[in-house]
Amino acid sequence: MGLILVRYGEIALKGKNRPYFTKQLRRNIRSTLKAHDIAGDVHQESQRIYVETDQPDAALEHLKRVFGIVSLSKVIEVPLTIEAMREVALQMAADFGLSEEHTYRADSRRSDKSFPIISPEINRLVGGVVKDATGATVQLKGEPDFTIGIEVQKERALMYGGIVAGPGGLPIPTAGRVIALMSGGIDSPVAAWMMMKRGCGVIPLHFSQNPVDTEKALENCRVLAGHSQGWRMEPIVMSHAEAIEPFLEKLHQIGAGRWACVLCKRAMIQKAEEVAAAHHAQAIVMGDSLGQVASQTLDNMEVISHGITKPILRPLIGMDKTEITALAQQIGTFDVSTRTTTDCAYLPDRPLTKGSVEKLTRILDELAHIDAKETENDGW
Amino acid sequence: MGLILVRYGEIALKGKNRPYFTKQLRRNIRSTLKAHDIAGDVHQESQRIYVETDQPDAALEHLKRVFGIVSLSKVIEVPLTIEAMREVALQMAADFGLSEEHTYRADSRRSDKSFPIISPEINRLVGGVVKDATGATVQLKGEPDFTIGIEVQKERALMYGGIVAGPGGLPIPTAGRVIALMSGGIDSPVAAWMMMKRGCGVIPLHFSQNPVDTEKALENCRVLAGHSQGWRMEPIVMSHAEAIEPFLEKLHQIGAGRWACVLCKRAMIQKAEEVAAAHHAQAIVMGDSLGQVASQTLDNMEVISHGITKPILRPLIGMDKTEITALAQQIGTFDVSTRTTTDCAYLPDRPLTKGSVEKLTRILDELAHIDAKETENDGW
Repeated sequence: MGLILVRYGEIALKGKNRPYFTKQLRRNIRSTLKAHDIAGDVHQESQRIYVETDQPDAALEHLKRVFGIVSLSKVIEVPLTIEAMREVALQMAADFGLSEEHTYRADSRRSDKSFPIISPEINRLVGGVVKDATGATVQLKGEPDFTIGIEVQKERALMYGGIVAGPGGLPIPTAGRVIALMSGGIDSPVAAWMMMKRGCGVIPLHFSQNPVDTEKALENCRVLAGHSQGWRMEPIVMSHAEAIEPFLEKLHQIGAGRWACVLCKRAMIQKAEEVAAAHHAQAIVMGDSLGQVASQTLDNMEVISHGITKPILRPLIGMDKTEITALAQQIGTFDVSTRTTTDCAYLPDRPLTKGSVEKLTRILDELAHIDAKETENDGW
Repeated sequence: MGLILVRYGEIALKGKNRPYFTKQLRRNIRSTLKAHDIAGDVHQESQRIYVETDQPDAALEHLKRVFGIVSLSKVIEVPLTIEAMREVALQMAADFGLSEEHTYRADSRRSDKSFPIISPEINRLVGGVVKDATGATVQLKGEPDFTIGIEVQKERALMYGGIVAGPGGLPIPTAGRVIALMSGGIDSPVAAWMMMKRGCGVIPLHFSQNPVDTEKALENCRVLAGHSQGWRMEPIVMSHAEAIEPFLEKLHQIGAGRWACVLCKRAMIQKAEEVAAAHHAQAIVMGDSLGQVASQTLDNMEVISHGITKPILRPLIGMDKTEITALAQQIGTFDVSTRTTTDCAYLPDRPLTKGSVEKLTRILDELAHIDAKETENDGW
């Protein structure tokens, strides 16, 4: 059997709500193990979660994507004597191949203070034999090549030789649920991922315009689902032709084709708000990055969100394309998003950059006028 | 005289609007130099901006904070012969102290194709003499210890030995202007900085509750002003006692003290919307990070932004505290933000986590009732 130590950071700060967050984190850890057929026992001891499993490497590989986890280590249980710690430290150094070309340090902390030797002394006593055996250089500051971690607890010490980074954030779905607009492009999956990181259960909403884009969007949702421990991600697909195109046609009729992108987005958010109400979601997530394309201006954002009452979350609003792209690669959605596709048939030559609520109102009035006329005709 | 090559990335993609962005970037570069008493000539040649100055090191130091700049290099003008390039490359290698312990590569590109030797051949011819002279190892992939950059232009080559990273983003204030709520804490200056990076002219709005916090907020504004090339940052300070506390007092009267944080924030945004209208700003920026504190829940965000028509931008909404803290340190606001201060007198023991628009409406009704009574009393 192997033992994994799970460290969580931010959740530890949550005061009275802490048990709620740690319970959800343990639940998400369990469901991750189960999803990958890894038998394991998950339990809490003071500020730490432990996973006991006979597949520690496989467990580490999957758990490092569970939001709320700051870092993980495979640990060895050691009796509470310096002699035992020294023996394990020497074994770990040998496994690593520690030599005089490397730097290292022993890094102990006592979560139980009844052990009579203080941390710096433990470091000296355990680290010293490693130096004698390998000739490696002690490095106390910064990141040495190798760290021997020692946690002194009440009845045992835990030792580890490596730390695997987790994604941080909060356990899904402790923050609630959101509707995330999902195109086939680079930005929207990254925006959804960032809100997942902050503990949101995401319901992706895609407007299907052509099969290629829809396949890209759904494939990205499958990638995201792999990060969505704690929340079953079920994308909703709506027909762009039914939901939005009749409206865009009318825009062209009244000569307001330049407004297509802005009003298409607005129509999508209006639909998203309906979906949010039906699914008890509390906000709408968009992949806007200010100024990235012509339609993502401050003026247009005001027009797009005019009359929407649910909060619109834009986690990428302050990010550069290079930063967003780097995240997409890390998440695993970049290759799908960058497959070639066809341009939207309604894309204007010169998309609107300076919309205003006043002009919006005029256009909506004019469209209502057309609708009224059509209804009259229907009556004939 | 020294010559600096300025590279901008994202702006180059802006199609028909490109001249607008590059003109603002040149303007911001000029005003940065002027603000630091550095004489310099700024001009554009195809996709590059050049700064000619006799204080290239000082110029680099300040220009590396100008938004829109991806990177900068001090460059040397070289006649268009391999012999001249070799001579400069050897000098640059000697200045760097390049030896057999280092890796390096020559990295040329021809922006003018009339020079008869193609790039890989230039690299070989120039890089070869460096190898012979120093014994350094050629490294073609990844990041070698030293890179010899060569840009072949129509009538000269430009060579450089180092690249200084800029902050990226877009030139201020090409994206427009925003009101940024500014407390004395860690998050709000970072949120403002991120929107500055995306080209916003920021008007900071602070609600003064105690002198310590106000000094912190104003000092952070001064730090941010150092990043705000192109936009004169003028903070607006409003009295918390006048603008918000009478309202909070009434909340306590009706036993709704738990709503203090949520409704205080809502009151601030309402004031911010008035300020935005007066200053022609197009959005309101907040430092919310989802779930970071009890009041930053999805439910509360809906309550806080209920009835606000300007877009609310929350660039930190998907970020962890550790990420925000790292940015604050990089920007230079962290040390100011973490100075001790006093807690808000209205801070409830158990702040509200699950507000709703329905409950909000009831509370506002009740408050209106009190107001009506007071008006009656006034009449007596």
